[in-house]
Amino acid sequence: MNNKAKLYGIGVGPGDPELLTIKAIKTIEKIDILYTPLASEKGESTSKKIISEYIRQDLEIKERHFPMTNDIESKISAWDLISIEIMEDVKSGKSVGLISLGDPMIYSTYVYILQRVIDSIEVETIPGITSFTNISSSNNFPLSMDKEALAIVPSTENIHRIRNIIKEFDSIVLMKVYKNFKVILELLFELGLEKHAIMVSNSSMENEIKYKNLNTVYELDSIPYFSTIIINKKIDKSI
Amino acid sequence: MNNKAKLYGIGVGPGDPELLTIKAIKTIEKIDILYTPLASEKGESTSKKIISEYIRQDLEIKERHFPMTNDIESKISAWDLISIEIMEDVKSGKSVGLISLGDPMIYSTYVYILQRVIDSIEVETIPGITSFTNISSSNNFPLSMDKEALAIVPSTENIHRIRNIIKEFDSIVLMKVYKNFKVILELLFELGLEKHAIMVSNSSMENEIKYKNLNTVYELDSIPYFSTIIINKKIDKSI
Repeated sequence: MNNKAKLYGIGVGPGDPELLTIKAIKTIEKIDILYTPLASEKGESTSKKIISEYIRQDLEIKERHFPMTNDIESKISAWDLISIEIMEDVKSGKSVGLISLGDPMIYSTYVYILQRVIDSIEVETIPGITSFTNISSSNNFPLSMDKEALAIVPSTENIHRIRNIIKEFDSIVLMKVYKNFKVILELLFELGLEKHAIMVSNSSMENEIKYKNLNTVYELDSIPYFSTIIINKKIDKSI
Repeated sequence: MNNKAKLYGIGVGPGDPELLTIKAIKTIEKIDILYTPLASEKGESTSKKIISEYIRQDLEIKERHFPMTNDIESKISAWDLISIEIMEDVKSGKSVGLISLGDPMIYSTYVYILQRVIDSIEVETIPGITSFTNISSSNNFPLSMDKEALAIVPSTENIHRIRNIIKEFDSIVLMKVYKNFKVILELLFELGLEKHAIMVSNSSMENEIKYKNLNTVYELDSIPYFSTIIINKKIDKSI
């Protein structure tokens, strides 16, 4: 097996281990060290759970805490330290993997590690199935057709900008809606889009919840962290 | 093996067979009939080539022509006929697969078949790696970070709308640039974006071409059909 000393950034898809690619699995099976991200210091790594059946007994695992906070200084400090450790491992001849939920290039912390190491070590990035394409597929709810442009928008963006994008595009994916989901839902109700939208939490994970009726969501006190709304104005659920 | 009579819409990714998911492979291995799309009546099916090592000897293959033309009547007529045939196969107890390059829900003809059969037969859609996430990963060129919205735009869209989207977004994917690539490139040069953009043709296929310098592309007489430009204003290639 060609086992080059480099960093592999590996997309592991949204949750279902069957949504791993052959390339991701082959890479996990050949690396020397696996870095797994932890969102909280006590928690479990969601992405590690997805690949659990492919982890060899002798694979060295380094669970590292990537803080999910608004404190940018503590984030930068964590990225700096993890990047230095990865560069040291690769320079000592090891092949290193860093797994990423969904796709590593779409709203993933992986990019901040990539940018810190790319000038010093070789890096190979392997794409993964994104949560929003899986939500679209598993609900038979098309994302975009023909000439339609598609906008992917984190709900942490300014609400006026979100409103403009929703008005201008026919197909929209709203990521990370958990924090301000009531504001987002009010906007969709106001624009009359509830019959053109679905919401899914924890797509393809064991605790997946599909909401076909957004009014039901509005009644909730809180929703899971991994919640995504997809809107397609050309698709009418009620038909 | 649970071999239910239904239609499976299967995303096969951009070209490299290693970018197939386990779920796609398991599905291809269990179906009774496989429909493969042909872009021209004489041509070869690109998506069939990707899955060739998983095609059983006894798998019934139905190659069907999906016209790539501006004549919408002939397209509709083809979609109608193929949909009727698929519904007949499923109603006679067969499990049927229809493969789709990239992801079946993003700019794929699959959606037109889905819409014609969904009220009559059971359908399960399986997502695939999209060409643009693969281009981003294989070039270590991040697509979108943090609060950045991402726009996916077919270059067949109105050029004024394309211009507005490029101005308003930091991250943009331009799909299907082959036809009007000079107009698109002139727009990128005018907006000073050439150092924030890359172009890839036939991503992950045997005949893949990566263009890091868009001036080189502009000198060409024509470019391949599957050509995609990704732009990230926060990434500077020249650094």
